[in-house]
Amino acid sequence: MRAASIIRVCGRQASTAVSRRALLRTGIRSAVPSTVRSYASEAKLTRETYDVQRLEHFGKLSDADIAKFKEILQSDSALVQDQDDLLQFNEDWMRKYRGSSQLVLKPKTTDQVSQILKYCNEKKLAVVPQGGNTGLVGGSVPVFDEIVISTASMNKIHSFDPVSGILVADAGVILETADQYLREQGYIFPLDLGAKGSCHIGGNVATNAGGLRLLRYGSLHGTVLGLEAVLADGTVVNNLTTLRKDNTGYDMKQLFIGSEGTLGIVTAISILCPPKPTSVNVAFLGLESFKKVQDTFVQARSELSEILSAFECIDQGSLNQVAEHMDSPVPLDETYPFYVLIETSGSNKDHDEEKLNTFLENAMENESVLNGTVAMDETQAQNLWSWREMVPEALAKCGGVYKYDVSIPLPQLYDLVDDTKARLQEAGVIGETDEYPVVDVLGYGHIGDGNLHLNVAVRRYDKKVEQLLEPFVYEWIQKVNGSISAEHGLGFAKKNFIQYSKDAGMLTLMRGLKSHYDPNGILNPYKYM
Amino acid sequence: MRAASIIRVCGRQASTAVSRRALLRTGIRSAVPSTVRSYASEAKLTRETYDVQRLEHFGKLSDADIAKFKEILQSDSALVQDQDDLLQFNEDWMRKYRGSSQLVLKPKTTDQVSQILKYCNEKKLAVVPQGGNTGLVGGSVPVFDEIVISTASMNKIHSFDPVSGILVADAGVILETADQYLREQGYIFPLDLGAKGSCHIGGNVATNAGGLRLLRYGSLHGTVLGLEAVLADGTVVNNLTTLRKDNTGYDMKQLFIGSEGTLGIVTAISILCPPKPTSVNVAFLGLESFKKVQDTFVQARSELSEILSAFECIDQGSLNQVAEHMDSPVPLDETYPFYVLIETSGSNKDHDEEKLNTFLENAMENESVLNGTVAMDETQAQNLWSWREMVPEALAKCGGVYKYDVSIPLPQLYDLVDDTKARLQEAGVIGETDEYPVVDVLGYGHIGDGNLHLNVAVRRYDKKVEQLLEPFVYEWIQKVNGSISAEHGLGFAKKNFIQYSKDAGMLTLMRGLKSHYDPNGILNPYKYM
Repeated sequence: MRAASIIRVCGRQASTAVSRRALLRTGIRSAVPSTVRSYASEAKLTRETYDVQRLEHFGKLSDADIAKFKEILQSDSALVQDQDDLLQFNEDWMRKYRGSSQLVLKPKTTDQVSQILKYCNEKKLAVVPQGGNTGLVGGSVPVFDEIVISTASMNKIHSFDPVSGILVADAGVILETADQYLREQGYIFPLDLGAKGSCHIGGNVATNAGGLRLLRYGSLHGTVLGLEAVLADGTVVNNLTTLRKDNTGYDMKQLFIGSEGTLGIVTAISILCPPKPTSVNVAFLGLESFKKVQDTFVQARSELSEILSAFECIDQGSLNQVAEHMDSPVPLDETYPFYVLIETSGSNKDHDEEKLNTFLENAMENESVLNGTVAMDETQAQNLWSWREMVPEALAKCGGVYKYDVSIPLPQLYDLVDDTKARLQEAGVIGETDEYPVVDVLGYGHIGDGNLHLNVAVRRYDKKVEQLLEPFVYEWIQKVNGSISAEHGLGFAKKNFIQYSKDAGMLTLMRGLKSHYDPNGILNPYKYM
Repeated sequence: MRAASIIRVCGRQASTAVSRRALLRTGIRSAVPSTVRSYASEAKLTRETYDVQRLEHFGKLSDADIAKFKEILQSDSALVQDQDDLLQFNEDWMRKYRGSSQLVLKPKTTDQVSQILKYCNEKKLAVVPQGGNTGLVGGSVPVFDEIVISTASMNKIHSFDPVSGILVADAGVILETADQYLREQGYIFPLDLGAKGSCHIGGNVATNAGGLRLLRYGSLHGTVLGLEAVLADGTVVNNLTTLRKDNTGYDMKQLFIGSEGTLGIVTAISILCPPKPTSVNVAFLGLESFKKVQDTFVQARSELSEILSAFECIDQGSLNQVAEHMDSPVPLDETYPFYVLIETSGSNKDHDEEKLNTFLENAMENESVLNGTVAMDETQAQNLWSWREMVPEALAKCGGVYKYDVSIPLPQLYDLVDDTKARLQEAGVIGETDEYPVVDVLGYGHIGDGNLHLNVAVRRYDKKVEQLLEPFVYEWIQKVNGSISAEHGLGFAKKNFIQYSKDAGMLTLMRGLKSHYDPNGILNPYKYM
């Protein structure tokens, strides 16, 4: 099983990999696999699937309201009312959730957002803030007839200071646009994720997106320096500061980071951007146990230290699914129980390569790592990344996937996969032939962040399997003080499960805050908690 | 003026420097210069100096209250009532503020803090949370008879996970104790500051301390992963999570970071700690203008990138004062308008030295830097650091100092020093002889964070000078959208100036939050805003 030394990647899947990555980068909609697209022409209405009742105190849209919005927006094209055009705003990209909003508003200025919300609050008209609509928990689409307030027309970059690296931009700027703009000036956006071609930076902030660079650059709670938001009653929160340090009062902006549009609508942000790394290396390693994955992570943190920018883990089952989906052998010459993708980003190519090679030699010598390969160029690096990025698509091909995006203290992280698998095996629902609903229980994710994507790949969705999984998975996470939503948020999907990660006292506090800022509950109702 | 190459430091001031740094590290109280100590045996009462009125709705301490607290704390020694013993809790270390509290409580558990606050809230007894009492704005001492709740007896480290680098500890753990504990396990605390030998980590979080490592490891809003706090009514906020990612609801902990004890008392924290750097380098440079300081910062961010851990600036006037105070020539062989101290922290000595040398060669070649010296060992590094750390003490020797800790967008940062100096010169109050109250206007600080310490060194405090400075300085900062308090906080000192950094809307929001969580206003009254 053990290879004597690090082998070099041959690049045989390079073209596939690049095209996938290119897809991801040009927009998540075009990256939606055709298998998903073929399920239905449009999603079932959320209210029917989940049996939700419309809140009676909300007003219903009238012609007078439309006239008022036209007056505020001063442009007919800023209102969407056509049924066909409304669909993309009513439905999430996975086609799991669908509402029936009859109106989308596309304000261009913060003042317009303020006027709209002030009016909606007076009339008790419910609203849903929407950015790129790339979320995974149904948070950005309506459940009933909520008015969609889209940030799509608020898409200006205000300023960038190349001395401090601070960017100020509208909420509706697309993440990739911001990143490209910054790259031209020698900087990058401190956040990267698959949906970068479509998602809006305001939505990223509102949902506290995690993504691929968190290990290195930290969370948005640290990098976002200021923001502007509009409260339910139209009050503009003017906190768009461009200072690294400002200890004058409560850090109000933090409340909006991760509030998923339930406390206010983020209209602009300022953010601290890191210099663009001039040297990027990617290694792909094979390991014999999750204990070794942990040992390797500790070693990487110590030896790669300041240049470590990603530490991703994929288990054998997940990688086998990718290999089958891509019809390609795995990147190493043998198979291993666990695979780790390591990325370094630094400012000196020679130094970084030397650090990485020393790290790999040590890891092989102390037998933490059994085998490995290092990308020789950007194409090969993208190829190796594709083995990590393809996992969700490959698993979806089995038929369906029960997905859990969870945080667990690192030492116990993979136990959830083992325990879930044992439970399904014991119940006799997992097997290799069609009579068994479950294909496999798999785990992968941003291990460097303690973030596991638990995936139960199934041939068909099955009530019995569901009952075996829930609340089992949530109770398991609660026992180890984990989080039932690491980075995807609560949205509609996890609204009813938050109590597994937050106790009654915390929920009371949160509900108190919501009532304080949005007493009529017009902002993104039916969701969050 | 221009030196041909980088010279090496001779280490002639090493002994002075080390002893000063040792003082700073063993506790800020012992580092208070004797000149300050000699001003008065104890500070004037704050209420007299600043003519403040006690709020009538607060209760007055009774024997029944004392009995209740003894019952809660189950130990007489957890109550301080002796007048001599009370002084250190009533007075700040600079002896600028003094209250007249008759009771200090030292709870050992969160439950005790909860019971105390619940009782105080019912009886409307005002309280002041106090950690190491090392603040600079009078935030941690009472103004009248508020009960001091000290975190001194809550000083246990709960846990440390060497895989993830996450520490969980009581609020009363001393910063240096936490850092030492971590160093033994190959990690460091992500915050460092002069008062580390005395300050409590709970106080650091409550005041959002900035300090020396912010440039590298970011603010506490990013590194603090969870906290436990007690609200005014005794409610325990149970948010002591140890997860890097947790998107389940509002990030409540953020509200307490920087709230200076006005929303709740922080009783425990969990924090992400970086690996201990194995290689640290320090360089001290001479530059001809603040423009060159900025150019050098941009170059350092780009070329030193991931290993840059400090970028401090000292102007000529400040350094001259240090030289006079230490009776020692400046560290370079000539004098320059500006000096920059650069620190790198990394994981590979050879790589770091090569990066630093290349950076310095480039900076000399393009004439951003005129001269420089690099420390050859830890003693020399501490010596160079002392030139930065001695500035406050050296300036205090002139007689007095008007101090402003401000954030300003980097391009305009030093203009505040020039403009203030010009204003005082025009008014004829600045000069070399005793008839002039002002000695000089000086600037230094954490330039990498956009944080300037503006110091007006005076021979004597003078009403006319004060009127020339205020509100001029605050108005100036307001015009460039700066912050009137970068890292020191508001406390008592800046309570009345917050409007220069936060508009009326923001103040209304903050006051709303305060009323929401502390309707009786018992937590740290007379301060913040």
